[in-house]
Amino acid sequence: MMKVRLKRAVAISGLLVLGLCGRSQNKIVVYQTDFGLKDGAVSEMKGVAMAVSPDLKLFDLTHEIPAYDIWAAAYRLQQTVPYWPAGTVFVSVVDPGVGTARKSVVLKTKTGVFIVTPDNGTLTLIAESLGIEAIREIDETVNRRPDSRKSYTFHGRDVYSYTGARLAAGVISYEQVGPLLARQEVVSIPYQKAELKGPAILGTIPVLDVQYGNVWTNIPGELFQQLHVAFGENIQVRILHQGKEVYKGEMPYMSTFGAVPPGKPLAYLNSLLQLAFALNQGNFAAANNIGSGGDWQVEVRRK
Amino acid sequence: MMKVRLKRAVAISGLLVLGLCGRSQNKIVVYQTDFGLKDGAVSEMKGVAMAVSPDLKLFDLTHEIPAYDIWAAAYRLQQTVPYWPAGTVFVSVVDPGVGTARKSVVLKTKTGVFIVTPDNGTLTLIAESLGIEAIREIDETVNRRPDSRKSYTFHGRDVYSYTGARLAAGVISYEQVGPLLARQEVVSIPYQKAELKGPAILGTIPVLDVQYGNVWTNIPGELFQQLHVAFGENIQVRILHQGKEVYKGEMPYMSTFGAVPPGKPLAYLNSLLQLAFALNQGNFAAANNIGSGGDWQVEVRRK
Amino acid sequence: MMKVRLKRAVAISGLLVLGLCGRSQNKIVVYQTDFGLKDGAVSEMKGVAMAVSPDLKLFDLTHEIPAYDIWAAAYRLQQTVPYWPAGTVFVSVVDPGVGTARKSVVLKTKTGVFIVTPDNGTLTLIAESLGIEAIREIDETVNRRPDSRKSYTFHGRDVYSYTGARLAAGVISYEQVGPLLARQEVVSIPYQKAELKGPAILGTIPVLDVQYGNVWTNIPGELFQQLHVAFGENIQVRILHQGKEVYKGEMPYMSTFGAVPPGKPLAYLNSLLQLAFALNQGNFAAANNIGSGGDWQVEVRRK
Repeated sequence: MMKVRLKRAVAISGLLVLGLCGRSQNKIVVYQTDFGLKDGAVSEMKGVAMAVSPDLKLFDLTHEIPAYDIWAAAYRLQQTVPYWPAGTVFVSVVDPGVGTARKSVVLKTKTGVFIVTPDNGTLTLIAESLGIEAIREIDETVNRRPDSRKSYTFHGRDVYSYTGARLAAGVISYEQVGPLLARQEVVSIPYQKAELKGPAILGTIPVLDVQYGNVWTNIPGELFQQLHVAFGENIQVRILHQGKEVYKGEMPYMSTFGAVPPGKPLAYLNSLLQLAFALNQGNFAAANNIGSGGDWQVEVRRK
Repeated sequence: MMKVRLKRAVAISGLLVLGLCGRSQNKIVVYQTDFGLKDGAVSEMKGVAMAVSPDLKLFDLTHEIPAYDIWAAAYRLQQTVPYWPAGTVFVSVVDPGVGTARKSVVLKTKTGVFIVTPDNGTLTLIAESLGIEAIREIDETVNRRPDSRKSYTFHGRDVYSYTGARLAAGVISYEQVGPLLARQEVVSIPYQKAELKGPAILGTIPVLDVQYGNVWTNIPGELFQQLHVAFGENIQVRILHQGKEVYKGEMPYMSTFGAVPPGKPLAYLNSLLQLAFALNQGNFAAANNIGSGGDWQVEVRRK
Repeated sequence: MMKVRLKRAVAISGLLVLGLCGRSQNKIVVYQTDFGLKDGAVSEMKGVAMAVSPDLKLFDLTHEIPAYDIWAAAYRLQQTVPYWPAGTVFVSVVDPGVGTARKSVVLKTKTGVFIVTPDNGTLTLIAESLGIEAIREIDETVNRRPDSRKSYTFHGRDVYSYTGARLAAGVISYEQVGPLLARQEVVSIPYQKAELKGPAILGTIPVLDVQYGNVWTNIPGELFQQLHVAFGENIQVRILHQGKEVYKGEMPYMSTFGAVPPGKPLAYLNSLLQLAFALNQGNFAAANNIGSGGDWQVEVRRK
């Protein structure tokens, strides 16, 4: 009997430990904004989260999204969310329409990740790739930082970071975020999808690999395989901007950059397993004046 | 009796948990410097903190303070410190006078936040806005990283980060930082305060919202309300640099950016609840050649 | 007896606490890359680490290493690793030869720090300064993120971050990284070492203090002392690029920047206790067109 009670004491304190050390949830919040890191805005957001719970673990996706570029925000979420564990809460604030009628929402993906954001197109790609488990509108009458009623402009801090932190810390459940949206869908930005058309594959350039100047397409490896190009074989690449040809050339499809000489072009599958173009140890985008966005088109054929 | 003892066992281990998991203190250190993130200086500072205690949680305010710009450091502290919980330790190192006679201090605000910094003007604004609970000079004979005696130049790592980390980790108490300063005051940078003068309000531009080019003033919303401007009404704005007019124009006072067309100016209360000027989805400062600092003056009237 | 058992209950739960809260290891991972922070690559790497264990503590050395600059990566490791506690795991990914024959390794320094990196020269300086305790090649048949077999290009995420995280979290031991290299040595980049030659000391400029434009040499304070220069005495400095003189001048050796007027040059020992040149509150490198790398030479004499 004595032993049993002692074990229970250990068990109870073990539970305490679980609760206090935060092992029952991952307590992770990941931030993305177009604020940059030169001023204090990101730090204000994180301070609010730490005031909710100092046990939270705060990370950054990036704060260098070009100002007001919702598409880029959508792209970065699609790129990175799959690598974070279920239970992670993303807070993404690229919000040119702050103060207008766009809804503030929390999406739960089918993989169990939460994304707190204005529903302004930011969720376009992640909703497609990971699927919508549920989407709730933030009830700002309860999910808004106390004492923030007079401030009209910083939703990122007072609503999004505050709500994301409380959700990640377990202060509120997902249900307590607010009501389910009647239709389980997000605001989506239209864009051209990758498609096989005769002997060619068409697609867009959703983003540049900015640090290196590599050109990333939205053409998945599986679709590209339908051209039956083996490693080392050449492909023909055309890149158009607003319908006008900007680049036309041939390059080999390779498994590694080092397989072509420095300065030479290659096609490869990037870390998203999508087709991309690069110069080994060079900057393909700068060398050929390539940009990114919905008005860029890519056409790829087997040589 | 048995039950009591078991409860005590739980209670004691609960206390252990509190101590080990660091819930009795928030153990947060927030860094601000003008070092940038291209070299290893910030990482050296954080390594020293982790060597003090791996339980500390380290954050960044910003490391992009313009080199030697003490005013900017002061401004960023005033902007962000209020959002972090009591017990947080800030380490701010913008120190053009390193090695000269400026004191190394730890300010405790009336709100319970600690700021470790050279007392060179960095504390000008935070001391005004949050109040001085106490200010102590760092006793470098004890609060200096062991084995750092031969290094003359990196106080940020060997004194400020080391002392901030030990304070946040509870290795030393606030009293053990060093002696109280005889006069409870900080070194202050003179600057023009916001004031109502006849039909106009005068003020300065303490900082730009650099990422977006919004112009922030030091005019508090409460003072601005004395002009009795309703949302949607126009105000007249003059901006002068060293007494010379750089900008003159009219703009509506709005609660949200989205309420004016893209590219149009508006006045609004920023996240500090101070008057600011912006172009909706544009860069007001760049479009009108506006800078910031004590030699910039703002004049605002009701239309 | 009762007391003993109660104490044991406390002790056992104390052990639980140690294990659960991760105090038995420091669980620190520090990242360095040339990826920048504008895209999602660093966040992908950190997501993988959090999926390994949410108890890990993740830090950044820098992600602003110039693209493909292995020497800079080597320099930043030498600069910062000594300040982090034993047990810390660095993950350094500057990898122009990704996909080629360079080995993926984990170096254990004699000070007990682990560095996960391609063995492409990145370890040149740290192996010299801290010594090689052991070096193991990563066995990618087991130490590679599951489901990453189709991805050819992102070793940083799928091998280096994954292995570093598992090592730091205690999921694998150092032995489980893979086999010891037959020869306990790293791939080294040749460079000119500091040496006393007649009345002069020769050296290189391994790096600039980029934020301030200070010029750092590889001349250790101990070697410089052999010129017997006292604080305040002048030295003669010549700087050559590819054998051609770029700068020649005199400056005092000082213990603090503030000891010379603003804009004036000085020599000092930097935070690595190596000789460096600066303009007080100015940019020495920009003012004199000084760069860094193996083709820069420095010559210092007592005046």
